[in-house]
Amino acid sequence: MGGDFAPRVTVEGAHAALTHLSAETTLVLFGDRAALAAEDTYGLLDDPRIDVVHTSEVIAMGDHPVKAFAQKSDSSIAVGFRHLCEGDIAGFASAGSTGAMMVGSMQAVGQIEGVIRPAIATAFRTAMGTDVLLLDVGLNADCKPEVLTQYGTIGSIYARETLGIPNPRVALLNIGEEPEKGNLLTKATYPMMAERGAAGDYNFVGNVEGKHLLTGEVADVVVCDGFSGNTLLKTIEGFYRILHRKGQSSPIIEGLNYENVGGTPVLGINSTVIIGHGCSSALAIANMIRLTERAARTDMVSQFKRAFNG
Amino acid sequence: MGGDFAPRVTVEGAHAALTHLSAETTLVLFGDRAALAAEDTYGLLDDPRIDVVHTSEVIAMGDHPVKAFAQKSDSSIAVGFRHLCEGDIAGFASAGSTGAMMVGSMQAVGQIEGVIRPAIATAFRTAMGTDVLLLDVGLNADCKPEVLTQYGTIGSIYARETLGIPNPRVALLNIGEEPEKGNLLTKATYPMMAERGAAGDYNFVGNVEGKHLLTGEVADVVVCDGFSGNTLLKTIEGFYRILHRKGQSSPIIEGLNYENVGGTPVLGINSTVIIGHGCSSALAIANMIRLTERAARTDMVSQFKRAFNG
Repeated sequence: MGGDFAPRVTVEGAHAALTHLSAETTLVLFGDRAALAAEDTYGLLDDPRIDVVHTSEVIAMGDHPVKAFAQKSDSSIAVGFRHLCEGDIAGFASAGSTGAMMVGSMQAVGQIEGVIRPAIATAFRTAMGTDVLLLDVGLNADCKPEVLTQYGTIGSIYARETLGIPNPRVALLNIGEEPEKGNLLTKATYPMMAERGAAGDYNFVGNVEGKHLLTGEVADVVVCDGFSGNTLLKTIEGFYRILHRKGQSSPIIEGLNYENVGGTPVLGINSTVIIGHGCSSALAIANMIRLTERAARTDMVSQFKRAFNG
Repeated sequence: MGGDFAPRVTVEGAHAALTHLSAETTLVLFGDRAALAAEDTYGLLDDPRIDVVHTSEVIAMGDHPVKAFAQKSDSSIAVGFRHLCEGDIAGFASAGSTGAMMVGSMQAVGQIEGVIRPAIATAFRTAMGTDVLLLDVGLNADCKPEVLTQYGTIGSIYARETLGIPNPRVALLNIGEEPEKGNLLTKATYPMMAERGAAGDYNFVGNVEGKHLLTGEVADVVVCDGFSGNTLLKTIEGFYRILHRKGQSSPIIEGLNYENVGGTPVLGINSTVIIGHGCSSALAIANMIRLTERAARTDMVSQFKRAFNG
């Protein structure tokens, strides 16, 4: 029950999501039961597919993520991760403290053996109406070539399993299309990704430039360091917000709306974790829940394990 | 007379620019005189403010820039740089080979003493209708903190002199607003830029994220490494192209149209050089010429010199 506008929009989002979830899915809400009930104008808490786990603490914006995760053991994030690790739930999502969500992902869930650095990813809707996955979008500001090369595998599996893209085209974000172009990092990464491509690990299609990202014509998965990815993501989000404020809208523009994306998966860890925007609206919460269900129902985590330590 | 659609759009662009130029400005066209005349349905070549310098060679897309610049000594780019270095012209612009334009900028014109690495910059129109300058956008894919710190000075002088922004707000592009955020490069750069700000070299306003770039609310000059800048520029251009193709237009969207920007100045060198888009339209050429006049009429180069070796 995290996020800047919780629990109101969280309850509203859960209600909106419920009609889209599989009949076999149970949606477990972690939060203050009385506060949830007070916002529940939908009869949500009486729905047989809803479970509530009462939590009494809140990790606030200003809290130190590591300390807060350890000390506020009855916060929705801490309790949620315990349920995830014990297998009571198949996936966990929150629009609460991003820092605490990352602490839970890395410390409680843990990274998959063989994965050098997990990544966070985001999907954009392209001009062709398909999805393109960009990773890393901020977990690892400084990446080694080996890390980017692994992101090809991680992104490819996620795109295939969760986004439903068969044989995803994996590209390296670069400043020039030729193999020898780039900065020190991408120049060193290209041959390593090409080798993984040749070995059949993923469908490597070479370098793409920023101009290709949103066309959908060249790549389904675009790999980059977390500094570049985060900058791109935030620039695109910022431009969307400007257009939105000016009342400009179209399917293309709405393709950049974070509310439709559902959140940022943490990839390369031992379970399904999705981080929502702190300022999530009810629509964003609903799509975050739907994305979490979709990801949790896939074979993603065991495919990561096979790829990295099989 | 370079560019993919030269000399047709170049003549058309020169014609369109002429009405906007100062009465004291002479526009010198470098190119094949007969080819120019064949496209001149405007009587441009008879205009007293137009000079033509005939050139007989063309640097082609596939040519090696360094070799072509040396060997094709009667190409419009080689001849143009000679005229620039001899002081016959005050500024030089071309939409021809970007590589050859860079060779001319670095070898013929030369960088200003004390400048570690020159930069190329681009301006975007913000949501507030102001300009924001982004640099570097691709000259230096890997930057040291000292280089980014100098870009603050270079960008500030250009923004003030050529874009007409008094006391430009200079920011460091980063993934987080707090001083301690970022990758290794930006973490090392922040205190150095802050020191330059404290010393009064420029008006340093701290870190900005991608989401701030196009709002105009926080910064007038945004400094970053050439990989990040080039990626951002091309992503924005690509998104503009998608919207344009779908027939979507508005003042905000048109603010991202490269045709309105006029080209990319090479900054930190001993003269005024503007590089146009290879695929420049007549409108883009016209704006490139106007930008070149504006930049050449300023005190920019001597201010760079004072800043770096005064």
